[in-house]
Amino acid sequence: MKNTEIPYKIYLEENEMPECWYNVRADMKNKPAPLLNPGTHEPMKAEELAGVFCDELIQQELDNSTPYFRIPNDIRAFYKMYRPSPLVRAYCLEEKLGTPAHIYYKFEGNNTSGSHKLNSAIAQAYYAKKQGLKGVTTETGAGQWGTALSMACAYLGLDCKVYMVKVSYEQKPFRREVMRTYGASVVPSPSETTNIGRKILAEHPGTTGSLGCAISEAVEVATSTPGYRYVLGSVLNQVLLHQSVIGLETKAALDKYGIKADMIIGCAGGGSNLGGLVAPFMGQKLRGEADYDIVAVEPASCPSFTRGKYAYDFCDTGMVCPLAKMYTLGSDFIPAPNHAGGLRYHGMSPVLSQLYDDGLMRAVSVPQTEVFEAAELFARVEGILPAPESSHAIKVAIDEAMKCRESGEAKNIVFGLTGTGYFDLVAYQQFNDGTMSDYIPTDADIERSLSMLPKM
Amino acid sequence: MKNTEIPYKIYLEENEMPECWYNVRADMKNKPAPLLNPGTHEPMKAEELAGVFCDELIQQELDNSTPYFRIPNDIRAFYKMYRPSPLVRAYCLEEKLGTPAHIYYKFEGNNTSGSHKLNSAIAQAYYAKKQGLKGVTTETGAGQWGTALSMACAYLGLDCKVYMVKVSYEQKPFRREVMRTYGASVVPSPSETTNIGRKILAEHPGTTGSLGCAISEAVEVATSTPGYRYVLGSVLNQVLLHQSVIGLETKAALDKYGIKADMIIGCAGGGSNLGGLVAPFMGQKLRGEADYDIVAVEPASCPSFTRGKYAYDFCDTGMVCPLAKMYTLGSDFIPAPNHAGGLRYHGMSPVLSQLYDDGLMRAVSVPQTEVFEAAELFARVEGILPAPESSHAIKVAIDEAMKCRESGEAKNIVFGLTGTGYFDLVAYQQFNDGTMSDYIPTDADIERSLSMLPKM
Repeated sequence: MKNTEIPYKIYLEENEMPECWYNVRADMKNKPAPLLNPGTHEPMKAEELAGVFCDELIQQELDNSTPYFRIPNDIRAFYKMYRPSPLVRAYCLEEKLGTPAHIYYKFEGNNTSGSHKLNSAIAQAYYAKKQGLKGVTTETGAGQWGTALSMACAYLGLDCKVYMVKVSYEQKPFRREVMRTYGASVVPSPSETTNIGRKILAEHPGTTGSLGCAISEAVEVATSTPGYRYVLGSVLNQVLLHQSVIGLETKAALDKYGIKADMIIGCAGGGSNLGGLVAPFMGQKLRGEADYDIVAVEPASCPSFTRGKYAYDFCDTGMVCPLAKMYTLGSDFIPAPNHAGGLRYHGMSPVLSQLYDDGLMRAVSVPQTEVFEAAELFARVEGILPAPESSHAIKVAIDEAMKCRESGEAKNIVFGLTGTGYFDLVAYQQFNDGTMSDYIPTDADIERSLSMLPKM
Repeated sequence: MKNTEIPYKIYLEENEMPECWYNVRADMKNKPAPLLNPGTHEPMKAEELAGVFCDELIQQELDNSTPYFRIPNDIRAFYKMYRPSPLVRAYCLEEKLGTPAHIYYKFEGNNTSGSHKLNSAIAQAYYAKKQGLKGVTTETGAGQWGTALSMACAYLGLDCKVYMVKVSYEQKPFRREVMRTYGASVVPSPSETTNIGRKILAEHPGTTGSLGCAISEAVEVATSTPGYRYVLGSVLNQVLLHQSVIGLETKAALDKYGIKADMIIGCAGGGSNLGGLVAPFMGQKLRGEADYDIVAVEPASCPSFTRGKYAYDFCDTGMVCPLAKMYTLGSDFIPAPNHAGGLRYHGMSPVLSQLYDDGLMRAVSVPQTEVFEAAELFARVEGILPAPESSHAIKVAIDEAMKCRESGEAKNIVFGLTGTGYFDLVAYQQFNDGTMSDYIPTDADIERSLSMLPKM
């Protein structure tokens, strides 16, 4: 029998759930660069953002100094439907790998949206409702964010319009039905319903879309429809703030059992999961209280950290959003359609970009067939079918655990398992059939899109 | 804020997980009728069953007197990957309904198989492995059982052949891919791979299949392939024994908080969930220690309890299995193909049939459009997308809670939420599109299939 001192699943009590979100920016010496007005290149003021975002979310977005934000009671009540989420000791995976490492994963797939996205969706919907708005617009890639937002809006009685990246819309019809069941309207992007959509379709006929393009459409609709605002599931500072609940619970669970993490691994698309998972650990690191090896894992097909440039760029393809300084492949970069699942965004959270640029974390990129090999192994021994996004973290956690087998080190490896793969069976089928391929952009591809960065 | 004395989710500690399964037959005065040899009509002996089932499972199947069976350590270790499962207080649903009732649901969807079926799958796979077998065969309807068995077999390194009811195979291609990801082979039933499949296809060209037919095929393959046995996800006594873990945990969680259930509601197809959920409560009732209103909910399209006959019948369409005395619609009864999800079996667990016949529980049947209305309401307020099967219990729990609103009674209503609806989005789409219909068999339909019961 296995060591039973540490349970398979560490569940916190509901009263151990964090009462506040943690804002890592407060502890950063080098603050993330401000959003800039795309016309004047001056930092965006709250009043300029008010047409796009909800008022309280703008305060959260711009606040680089307040370390803790109290989680409103209504959001805590919603969180209690699915949180605290379990921190799982991967005993079966450890045994399978024959590693002395101790592997833990924070599992965020235990809710119908199937991912961590719900943590910020309910927060953003709550502030929209509080402001008396009628509805919100958003984009979704793999569909996790759109599903989460639909759920949150159904719960609060808000209207929800989702622009879904066309390749995902076609590959994932069931995602659409979940969103409809929660009462959302879902439009494949680019679409004929917006000016920017029509422009992109004219310039790139047959395009399978991108998050950057869907963002432009959702922003256009929000800013041109009274009573609507735009909400976003990643990249923004406010999203990382809300997602800090993942890291705070993880740290509380580890502390409860006296476990000191050595490595913390998360998948990184726009940074919502990674930024939330690592927040309190990064805080300790910034304050000099502890050290951790923090690793971002990104797909080789969309490698913002590992092959991008740290520069001001457009957040969206239509160039209607503020400029953000971030690791980017260029807003014109559209990942190959054969790439499964999320993590398709051309840029990276400005907070994580600054931390990465300051050497406080590292990044690796992995090809998708290796990711699915890791996913299958994990599914068979741990009994959870992981989302392709999450499986990027699994892949690197396994690699690191195998290094421990070589070295004999009993490292504590913690990774974020952001969600389940129930809606990714087309990708799994490709993998099962042996028809999945890797696509790695050439240097010329990246140079081309980076050559279109805005002139500052 | 809501009453926070009872948490939203009651999680037991891993060391509070049951150490034994409970065998309700030990406390039944009227034992379930024995399985009969279809040729001689004599009770089946262990040695006659040995070609079909694993040896230890036959002992469990035939034992009507041992009240507790110790759960082997290896099965407990597997259970710990996803158990104890939460008992959720449905605060949000109660608020939405404006009912004084307290509603609790035992949620069994928190594992990749997405349902309670895993509880018995790992047990049956374990005993097959222990016996040194090479693999197992089975049937699956909606796919929950096949998925669960594939997971369990992957974990233990057993081969797994699944005959999947054709209508589900076609409506649920992703179910097939999950099973393949776990390494199983999946065949639509009826198929050309067995004698009985070929016979049924010849007699009923274009049939969409049934569980009874898929069982015949799986049994034929198991009994004709060396090193294989047949396993079944419902109906059998052994399955109810394994599933008692659901009820034991539910009772332990209620006891921990001093809650006395008034009603216990479960959906009923073959009886695996209902039998497991109610086992320890029924035990108390049988021993005169407590009383509960125990309710089986079945689909109006396949109403074994409410419109069937308590009689010996074939368990399968091909009539190769032993005869079981149960509430049945006749083994020739095939539910309308428009019926969504599981609960398509013509018969009912012999244990539950006897308990129902003795007046120890009651049954109601509900049409599927009302079930999906309840499912949508539940999804929007409780944040879990329920399986159509589970939603039968939701429907009746809501009805009962509304009666409490009329009467002012603060009943404690407990129901089993057996799984999630991630793979039932075709049905949800029909419901969203308004194209879902109800099919209720005519008296003539049922009389016809009942007229073909075996002559005893």
